[in-house]
Amino acid sequence: METGRLEAFSDGVFAVAITLLALDLAIGGPGPHQPALATKLHDHWPSFAAYAVSFATIGIIWVNHHALVRNFAKTDRPLLFLNLLLLFFVVSIPFATSTIAAYLLAGNADASLAAAIYQGVFEGMSISFTLLFWWAIRREHLRVALTAQQGRQATIRFGIGQLGYIAGIGLAFVSAPASLALSGLVAVCYIFERTPAAPQLPGGQRQGDHGEHPGA
Amino acid sequence: METGRLEAFSDGVFAVAITLLALDLAIGGPGPHQPALATKLHDHWPSFAAYAVSFATIGIIWVNHHALVRNFAKTDRPLLFLNLLLLFFVVSIPFATSTIAAYLLAGNADASLAAAIYQGVFEGMSISFTLLFWWAIRREHLRVALTAQQGRQATIRFGIGQLGYIAGIGLAFVSAPASLALSGLVAVCYIFERTPAAPQLPGGQRQGDHGEHPGA
Amino acid sequence: METGRLEAFSDGVFAVAITLLALDLAIGGPGPHQPALATKLHDHWPSFAAYAVSFATIGIIWVNHHALVRNFAKTDRPLLFLNLLLLFFVVSIPFATSTIAAYLLAGNADASLAAAIYQGVFEGMSISFTLLFWWAIRREHLRVALTAQQGRQATIRFGIGQLGYIAGIGLAFVSAPASLALSGLVAVCYIFERTPAAPQLPGGQRQGDHGEHPGA
Amino acid sequence: METGRLEAFSDGVFAVAITLLALDLAIGGPGPHQPALATKLHDHWPSFAAYAVSFATIGIIWVNHHALVRNFAKTDRPLLFLNLLLLFFVVSIPFATSTIAAYLLAGNADASLAAAIYQGVFEGMSISFTLLFWWAIRREHLRVALTAQQGRQATIRFGIGQLGYIAGIGLAFVSAPASLALSGLVAVCYIFERTPAAPQLPGGQRQGDHGEHPGA
Repeated sequence: METGRLEAFSDGVFAVAITLLALDLAIGGPGPHQPALATKLHDHWPSFAAYAVSFATIGIIWVNHHALVRNFAKTDRPLLFLNLLLLFFVVSIPFATSTIAAYLLAGNADASLAAAIYQGVFEGMSISFTLLFWWAIRREHLRVALTAQQGRQATIRFGIGQLGYIAGIGLAFVSAPASLALSGLVAVCYIFERTPAAPQLPGGQRQGDHGEHPGA
Repeated sequence: METGRLEAFSDGVFAVAITLLALDLAIGGPGPHQPALATKLHDHWPSFAAYAVSFATIGIIWVNHHALVRNFAKTDRPLLFLNLLLLFFVVSIPFATSTIAAYLLAGNADASLAAAIYQGVFEGMSISFTLLFWWAIRREHLRVALTAQQGRQATIRFGIGQLGYIAGIGLAFVSAPASLALSGLVAVCYIFERTPAAPQLPGGQRQGDHGEHPGA
Repeated sequence: METGRLEAFSDGVFAVAITLLALDLAIGGPGPHQPALATKLHDHWPSFAAYAVSFATIGIIWVNHHALVRNFAKTDRPLLFLNLLLLFFVVSIPFATSTIAAYLLAGNADASLAAAIYQGVFEGMSISFTLLFWWAIRREHLRVALTAQQGRQATIRFGIGQLGYIAGIGLAFVSAPASLALSGLVAVCYIFERTPAAPQLPGGQRQGDHGEHPGA
Repeated sequence: METGRLEAFSDGVFAVAITLLALDLAIGGPGPHQPALATKLHDHWPSFAAYAVSFATIGIIWVNHHALVRNFAKTDRPLLFLNLLLLFFVVSIPFATSTIAAYLLAGNADASLAAAIYQGVFEGMSISFTLLFWWAIRREHLRVALTAQQGRQATIRFGIGQLGYIAGIGLAFVSAPASLALSGLVAVCYIFERTPAAPQLPGGQRQGDHGEHPGA
C-alpha cells in the first residue's frame, strides 16, 4: 500500500489536535464578579504554559513523522495500526493538556497525578513512534536502509525522549510545574537537535520516486 | 472522476471525528466541592472506555476505506453520495459516544437506549460501507475485479461486523456495559483479522497507475 | 497557480464544518431533574433535523465544488478570494444550524428570524458558488469550455437553488419548520438531479493531465 | 525534503483554525429571562465583526502561504520549525478573537488589553511569515530567485502589514473598536493588493516540476 493516505489522515489528526489545544485557552467574558482581564490572564498562566509545551511537542512529533514516513517505500496493515496507536496518544494530548492546566497549581496529589498523566501520554506517543520505526526497519519498508550508525543515532534519539518523559512522570510527584518545565525542555532539545531520523536523500527528492535503487 | 478529493475529504472527516472524540474526556477543574482528581477519573471510566472503542472503530473503518478506495479506478456521483452517507454515520459517532458515556452507568432504560443508539450508528456505518462496496463492484469501478472467493470473503467480513452490531443493539437492552464491550471486541477482531478487502496488488503500487491493465 | 492547495484547504474546511455540525447534537447527561433520555431525544428533534439538512447541504456543495474545481486548468488570486467567500458561508453553517435548532419551536418572531438566517447563509453560499463559476468561465480557467447548452443547464441548476433559498427566507416568516423542510427538499433535489456541472471527461481522467488539448 | 506534507499539515491547521472561529458565534437558546433573538444578535455584534476580520486575515495569510510555498524547491528542518512558529500564531487566533469579542465593548483597560493581544497575535503571525520568507531566500530554497525589485516589493508588503498591526497595538489603548477596524482595513488592503509574493511562473505550472531550471 502507498503512504499517501497514511500521511493525509495523520496530517489531519495532527492538525486538528494541535488546533484544538487552543480551545482550552478560552477565558470567560467580563462580568460583575469577574476580575480584570489582566488578572485573569495572569492566573491563567498554566494554560498558556501547557499550551506552548503541547504545541511544540505535537509539532516535533509531526516533523519526525514526516521524516520517517517519507522514507517508507510502502505500508502494510500492522504499520497502519501502529500509526493509529501513535495517533491515539496524539488525540489524547488536548485532554491531558487541559487536565494539567486545570490542576497545575492545586499543589497537592491532584497536581502530581495530572502532571503524571500528561507525561504518560507523551511517553505513550514516544513508545508508539519507536514501535512504528522498528516495524518499518524490521519489515524492510524503508526506501533507504539505515546504516548501523544511523540505527544507533535513532536509538539514542528515541531513548532520550523516552527517558525524559519517564523522568517527567517521576518528577510529577515532586513538583508538577517542574515536570511541565521538563517536557518543555525535551521539546526544545528536539528542535535544536540535528541527528537525521532518516538518511538524507540527495537533491531534496524521495529516492526511489523514479525507480532508482538505493545504491544508484 | 478521480478519487483524490474523495480521499482527501473523507480523510479530513475521519481525522476531525476521531480527534473530536477526545473533547468529551474533559473533566472539570478543581473546586471547593469537587472530589479528588483520582476519584473523578475513576468515576469517568465510561468516557474513557467509550473513547477507546470509538477511536478503534473509526480507525478500522478508515483502514478499510483506504483499502477499498485505493482499488477504485474512478468514482461517479452515486459513489460520492454513498460515501457521504458513510461519513454521516462517522460524523455522528462523537455524539453517540458522548451519549453512551453519560448514560452507561444509569443502569436503567436510559443506559439501554444510549447503548442501542451507539450500536445503531455503528450498524449504519457498516451498512453504508457495504453499499459503497457493492456499488463499486456492480458498476465495475474497481481496478482489479474481485475473484469469487474474494467476494465471499468480503461478504463474510461485512456480515460479521453487521451481525456484531445488531447483536450489540439487542444486548444493549440486557446490559449497556456488555454491549459496549461487544463493540470493543468487534474492533479487536477487525484489527487482527487478515482477510484482504481488496486484491493485493504486486509491488506495493496501485495497479493501473502506469497504464497497465488488470490482466497485464 | 495550481488547484492542489485550493482543493486541500477547501476540503479541510468542508470536512471540519460538516463534522462540527454534530457537536450541537450533544444532550446533557442524566441528573436529578432531567427527563428520561427518550424524552430528551424527542424534544431535541429540531437539532437532528437541522443537522441532517445541513449535513446534506454541505455534502452537496462539496460534490459540486469537486466537480467544478476539477475542471479548473488554473487559479488566480480573485478565484482564491471568491473561494474564500464561499468558505466563509460554509464555516457559518454550524452557527446558523445551532441557531435554527435552538429557536425552531419557539413559534414566534425568533423562530422566523433564526430560519431566515439559516436560509440566508445557504443563499450566500449559493451566490458565492455561482460567482466562482462565472469567474472561472469569464477568465477561461476551465480545461474544457462549456457548450452553450451546458451553460444554460448550469444557470438553471444554480437558479433553482437560489430561488429555493430565497423562497425559504420568505417561508421562514410564515413557518420556520416549513422553511427548514424546504431546505431539506432542495438538498434531496440536488442529490437526485443529474445535470453535469462540468463536461464529462472521457476515461475518468482529467483531460489535460498529460498535455492533451480539449480538441484532442 | 519535499513540500507536500508541509502544505498538507499547514492547510489542515489553517482549515481547522478558520472553522473554529465560528464556534464562538454561538448564542444561547431561548429561555424565560432571555431577550429576543434580534436583540441578542444585535448585542453580539463584536463577535460577528471579530469573526469577519479574523476569517479574512487567516484567509489572506493562507493565500500568501500558498503563493510562497509553491515557489519552494525544497524544505529543511529550520523551515519546518519556522512554519510551526507561524502556525502557532494561526492557532492562537480563535482564542484572541473570542477574547476581543468578549471585551470589545467593556470600554476600559480590559477592552484595550484584549485588542492589543489580538493585534499582537497578528503581528506575531506576520513576523513569522517574514522569517519563513527570508530563510527561504537566504538558503536558496526558491525555485525561481526573486529579482531585486521583487525583493523590494515583498519587503514593502510585509512592512505594511507589520506596521499596520503595530499601529493597531497602539490604537488599542485609544479605542478597541478602532483597533479592530484597522485590522479589517489591513485585510481589505491585502485582498485588493496586487504585488506578487512570488515570481509569476508561466503557464500556471510550477516551474521545475519537470526538471526545467530557472533560467530555462
